[in-house]
Amino acid sequence: MATTLGQNQYGKAESRVVRIVRDGPTHHIKDLSVSIALSGDMDDVHYSGSNAHVLPTDTAKNTVYAFAREHGIASAEHFGIRLARHFVTSQRTVHRARVRIEEYAWERIAAPGSPTGRAHSFVRAGQETRVCQITFDGGRWEIVSGLKGLTVLNSTDSEFQGYVRDRYTTLQEAYDRVLATDVSARWRYRWTSDAEPEPDWDGEYARSREGMLQAFAGTYSLSLQQTLYRMGAEVVESGDTIDEIRLSLPNHHHFLVDLAPFGLTNEHHVYFAADRPYGLIEATVLRDGAEALIPADLTLV
Amino acid sequence: MATTLGQNQYGKAESRVVRIVRDGPTHHIKDLSVSIALSGDMDDVHYSGSNAHVLPTDTAKNTVYAFAREHGIASAEHFGIRLARHFVTSQRTVHRARVRIEEYAWERIAAPGSPTGRAHSFVRAGQETRVCQITFDGGRWEIVSGLKGLTVLNSTDSEFQGYVRDRYTTLQEAYDRVLATDVSARWRYRWTSDAEPEPDWDGEYARSREGMLQAFAGTYSLSLQQTLYRMGAEVVESGDTIDEIRLSLPNHHHFLVDLAPFGLTNEHHVYFAADRPYGLIEATVLRDGAEALIPADLTLV
Amino acid sequence: MATTLGQNQYGKAESRVVRIVRDGPTHHIKDLSVSIALSGDMDDVHYSGSNAHVLPTDTAKNTVYAFAREHGIASAEHFGIRLARHFVTSQRTVHRARVRIEEYAWERIAAPGSPTGRAHSFVRAGQETRVCQITFDGGRWEIVSGLKGLTVLNSTDSEFQGYVRDRYTTLQEAYDRVLATDVSARWRYRWTSDAEPEPDWDGEYARSREGMLQAFAGTYSLSLQQTLYRMGAEVVESGDTIDEIRLSLPNHHHFLVDLAPFGLTNEHHVYFAADRPYGLIEATVLRDGAEALIPADLTLV
Amino acid sequence: MATTLGQNQYGKAESRVVRIVRDGPTHHIKDLSVSIALSGDMDDVHYSGSNAHVLPTDTAKNTVYAFAREHGIASAEHFGIRLARHFVTSQRTVHRARVRIEEYAWERIAAPGSPTGRAHSFVRAGQETRVCQITFDGGRWEIVSGLKGLTVLNSTDSEFQGYVRDRYTTLQEAYDRVLATDVSARWRYRWTSDAEPEPDWDGEYARSREGMLQAFAGTYSLSLQQTLYRMGAEVVESGDTIDEIRLSLPNHHHFLVDLAPFGLTNEHHVYFAADRPYGLIEATVLRDGAEALIPADLTLV
Repeated sequence: MATTLGQNQYGKAESRVVRIVRDGPTHHIKDLSVSIALSGDMDDVHYSGSNAHVLPTDTAKNTVYAFAREHGIASAEHFGIRLARHFVTSQRTVHRARVRIEEYAWERIAAPGSPTGRAHSFVRAGQETRVCQITFDGGRWEIVSGLKGLTVLNSTDSEFQGYVRDRYTTLQEAYDRVLATDVSARWRYRWTSDAEPEPDWDGEYARSREGMLQAFAGTYSLSLQQTLYRMGAEVVESGDTIDEIRLSLPNHHHFLVDLAPFGLTNEHHVYFAADRPYGLIEATVLRDGAEALIPADLTLV
Repeated sequence: MATTLGQNQYGKAESRVVRIVRDGPTHHIKDLSVSIALSGDMDDVHYSGSNAHVLPTDTAKNTVYAFAREHGIASAEHFGIRLARHFVTSQRTVHRARVRIEEYAWERIAAPGSPTGRAHSFVRAGQETRVCQITFDGGRWEIVSGLKGLTVLNSTDSEFQGYVRDRYTTLQEAYDRVLATDVSARWRYRWTSDAEPEPDWDGEYARSREGMLQAFAGTYSLSLQQTLYRMGAEVVESGDTIDEIRLSLPNHHHFLVDLAPFGLTNEHHVYFAADRPYGLIEATVLRDGAEALIPADLTLV
Repeated sequence: MATTLGQNQYGKAESRVVRIVRDGPTHHIKDLSVSIALSGDMDDVHYSGSNAHVLPTDTAKNTVYAFAREHGIASAEHFGIRLARHFVTSQRTVHRARVRIEEYAWERIAAPGSPTGRAHSFVRAGQETRVCQITFDGGRWEIVSGLKGLTVLNSTDSEFQGYVRDRYTTLQEAYDRVLATDVSARWRYRWTSDAEPEPDWDGEYARSREGMLQAFAGTYSLSLQQTLYRMGAEVVESGDTIDEIRLSLPNHHHFLVDLAPFGLTNEHHVYFAADRPYGLIEATVLRDGAEALIPADLTLV
Repeated sequence: MATTLGQNQYGKAESRVVRIVRDGPTHHIKDLSVSIALSGDMDDVHYSGSNAHVLPTDTAKNTVYAFAREHGIASAEHFGIRLARHFVTSQRTVHRARVRIEEYAWERIAAPGSPTGRAHSFVRAGQETRVCQITFDGGRWEIVSGLKGLTVLNSTDSEFQGYVRDRYTTLQEAYDRVLATDVSARWRYRWTSDAEPEPDWDGEYARSREGMLQAFAGTYSLSLQQTLYRMGAEVVESGDTIDEIRLSLPNHHHFLVDLAPFGLTNEHHVYFAADRPYGLIEATVLRDGAEALIPADLTLV
C-alpha cells in the first residue's frame, strides 16, 4: 500500500437537544447543539470497510438524548464531560472523545408585577453563542470554552497611527475612530483531572464574558491588537481557572463618508459600515508559564 | 412589439449607515441598512437604454448618507419618510418611492457604579431586527413597520387536538406540548397624511413588540393560529395607531424523544428541536372596518 | 370584537423529498423542497382555537411523501399540481392551496468511456435553484415558475451614461464596464385550466433559462434595465406558453481599483467586487394584452 | 506581568479581486477572495499599542490589487506564493505570511454555432469552491489546496452493517442505502522550495477533483470511512505531487420514509433528506513515509 491512514475521527454532529426541567409552575430550559467525535482503533473501517469497531453515529445521538434525561444538563461543560467519559470508558476501541457544544441563551419574558418574569415563557437572548469543547483521552481532560458573535463598538477612544509605510500604503492616520468587532474567543481551563473539583462553569463563563466587555470598553485603544491583548489578559488575570485564551477579532471598518461634495462636514457623524474586506486580528494570551495548547488556526480557508 | 413593460422599480439596496451623535462624552448610535426603490416614467430606459430619466442608484446611496448628516436619524420611520419625500418631490420622473430599512439595536455596555452604563461603548442587543417600509406616491403615505427573528418558546400551556383526519394523518394528539416560534410581523399604521402629526414611531414599536410577547406568553394555546390571532389583536387593540398586522409564525417543532428503548420515561423532559420541515402559520389581523393592504405573500418562493 | 381575521394560510414548509427511480442499473433522481399553504374556512381556529377544520401540517408533509411514491415526480410543476388539486378537492374546508417547490439539480458523474456517465452516481450541478409556485382555488390554476441564484457577468459591452444629475450625484460615466448580476426570475404560464394540456414544464424551464442567458450575453447594454427587459422579452416572445415574467436583478458592482498611487494604470484589468450596497433593478415584462398577476414586491423588507 | 503573548497574526481578510484579461475580443476571468495573515515581531503592538512594526491591513489589501495588475493571476496558488514572498522578504518585522484564497469558477455562456462559447460572457459554474493556503516563513513553503461544497450522491452500492452495539443502539442495518455527502478536502503538496519548479496547480486541482469523484462513484461502500479513504488515496496515488490529504465528509442522511400507514411499500423510492444532525467522518490519508502537517481540527467549535 502506498498510503497510510493518519489522524481520524467520526461521530454525530449538531444534535439539537432541549431540556426542560419543571419545578412546579416554574420551568427551566437548556438548549444545546452537541457534536461528538470519536477516535481509536479505526484502521479496519478505513482500509476494508469492516464496522466491527464502529459504534454508529446514530448511537452517539441517542446517547446525547438519553444522558440529558438520565443526568440532566447542569452546564454545557459538565454535560460534555459526562458524554466524553462515557464513550472512552465504555467503548474498548474508542481512545479519545471530543465533544463540541453550542449553547443558545434564553431569558424569561417579563411578567407584569413579577421581578423574575414568566414562569414558563422564554425569549432568545443576546446575539452571541456560547461554545465549549471537551476532549478526553482516558486520562487527561482538556476543556476549552468560549463564545462567538459578541458584537461590540466603541464610538471614540480609538486611534491608529505611527504604522509602517511601504509603496502600497495609502491609509490616512486616524486619531479618533470607531472601533467595532465581533468577538470570537476560546479559553482553556487549568482543570485537567478528575482528582480536582470542576470549576463553576457557568460562573466562569459569565466572568469571562463580562471581563472582555469591560476591557474592550475601558481600553483607550492605539491598535486593535492592544485591545485584544487587554481583553485576553483580563480573562486570565481576573481568576485562577483559565491559563490560555485565543481571540479572533475582525476589524469592522466604519469609514467616515466623504460628504464634502455636498457641502457637508463629517468629522464624527456618519459612517459607512463595510462588510468586506475586513482586518482580522488573532492572538493567544497565556498565563505566565502556561503551555499553548489552543490551535492557532481557528479559522478555516 | 409583442411585449410591454409592467410595474418596475430601481434603486440602491442595503446601504449601511451608522450615525453617531456626540452629546458631550455621551454618544448615541443609530445603525440602519437602507434600501431605496424608485418608480416613475421609466419606459425609455427599459425599451432603449436611455438613462435620461434615471437618477443613478449611486446618487440614492449618497442621499442616504447626506441626509443622515443634514437631518439626523430621529427614528427609522422618520428617516425613511424624509428620504421618500425627497425623491418624489425633487425628481420630476419619480412618481413613487419605497424605502425599506432594517435597524440593528445596540445597548450600552454596563459600567461599574453607573445606572446608565458606558457613555460610548455598546454591545449589539437581542436577536430580532426591526424593519420598516415607507411608501409615498406624492400624496398618500403607507407606513408598514415590524420585526423579524424574535424567537420565543412556551414550555407548557399548549395543546393540539381535535383536528381533521384523512388517510394520510398519523399525528398523535398533544395535550401539553412545547410551542416555539420565530416571530415575523409587519404592521400598518393608520397615518397616511402629512396633515396629521406622525406617531411616536419608537414608542409604537416598543408597545407592539411587548404586546406580542405578552400575548404569546399569556395565551393558553389550542393552536398556533389562535396564538397568532391574539398576538395580532393585542397590537391593534392596545393602541389606536395601527390598523392592520400580518404575522408569519413558523412552528418550530420540539419533538419528545422516544427514550423507551433505553428504559427511560420522557413525558416533558427531553426534546429534539427540528429544523425542517416546519409548520408555517400566516394571517392578517385587521381593525374592524380597516382595509387589508399588506400583501399576503410575504414569503418568497 | 374590535378586530377581524384577514387573509390567512397554513401548512408545512420545506419538506425535502428525494425520489429515486431505478431503471435497471440506471437510476434517476428528483430532489425537491416542498412547501404547502392551505386557506379556507379557518375563522374558528383563529378566534377560538378549535381545530375542527384544520388538517395537521404533519398530514401535509405525509401527503408529499406518499404522493411521491404513488404518482412519482414527473416534474416539479406537475407534482405541485397533483398536490394542490388533492387538498382542494379532498378537504371540504380548504378553498385554496398554494404549493411552492425548490428543485435542486443533479448531473451524472462522468464515467470513463461512457457518453452518458455513471448509472447511479451524481454531483450537484450549477449554482441556481429552480422554483415554482402552484396555486389552485378549485377552478383556476396559476402556475409561476422561475429560478434564483443564476450568476452571470459580461466583461464588456456595457455602458452607463446620460443619466440625471442632482446635487447628490458624484458618479462618473462609464463607457466600458463590467455588468454582473444574480438572476432571480418568476414567469407565469398561460395555462390555467385542466381543459388544456399541461405545457412541457421541463422543456419550458430549459428554454427560459437559456433565453435569459442568451439575452444577457447578446445585449449591448446601455443600462441594466435595458438588459432586464431584453431577458424578459426573450422568455415571453420565444414561445407561446408564458404571458408574464418578473425579474429582479441586483447590480453586482465591479469597481475598477485606483492603482495610480502605485504608478499603475488600470483601464479594464483589476476590479473590486463589492457586496453591499448594490443596485437593484426589478421589472415585469408582459405579453401584449396579458394581465399582470405576479406581485411587484417579490423581495421582503 | 502575569500574562504573555502567544502565537498571533493579523492582516486583511476577504479582499475580493476580479481580474479580466482581454485577449482581443476573447476575455479571461479570475475571481478570488484573498485573506492575508502576517506574523513576526509584534510584541509591542499587543503590549503597548505601538504600531511601529505594523504594516496596515489596508496596505495588505492594496498589495493584493496591485499585484493582480502587475503580475496577473496565473493560478490561485501562484498568486498566493507571490504575495507571501513579498510580505516576508520586504518587511523586516514579518517572519511568516499565510495567504488563504477562495476561487469562484466561471464558465463561458454557450454561443450558438461556437464550440468555445461566448467571448466575454460568463456564468458561475458548479457548487464547489476551490481553496488554497500558502504559508511561507522565509525558507520553506507549505501549500495546502482543496475544495469545499462538492455535493455528491450514490443511489445504491452502499451498506452499513456489522457495527458495534451498546445499550443506546437502535439503528437498523442497511444493505442498500443512499450515500450522500458534501466533500471538503485539503491536500498538501510535496513542493516546499523555490529550488524546485512549481507544480501545475490548475492541472493538479482538476486531477484531484476528478479523482475524488471517480473514487466516490466507483467504490462499493461498506462505510463512509472506507469511501473517504479511497477518495484520499486516489488523490495521493494517482500523482506524485501530493503527500497528504485531509477529508471531512458529513453523512447527509437520506431516510426511507415509512409509508406503510398509507398502504404503500417503499424499498428504495422515497427519501427524507435530513439536515441535522448528521454523521461527520474526518480523516487524513498520507503517502507512506510522509509527515502529517494538516491540522486535524479543520472544523470549528
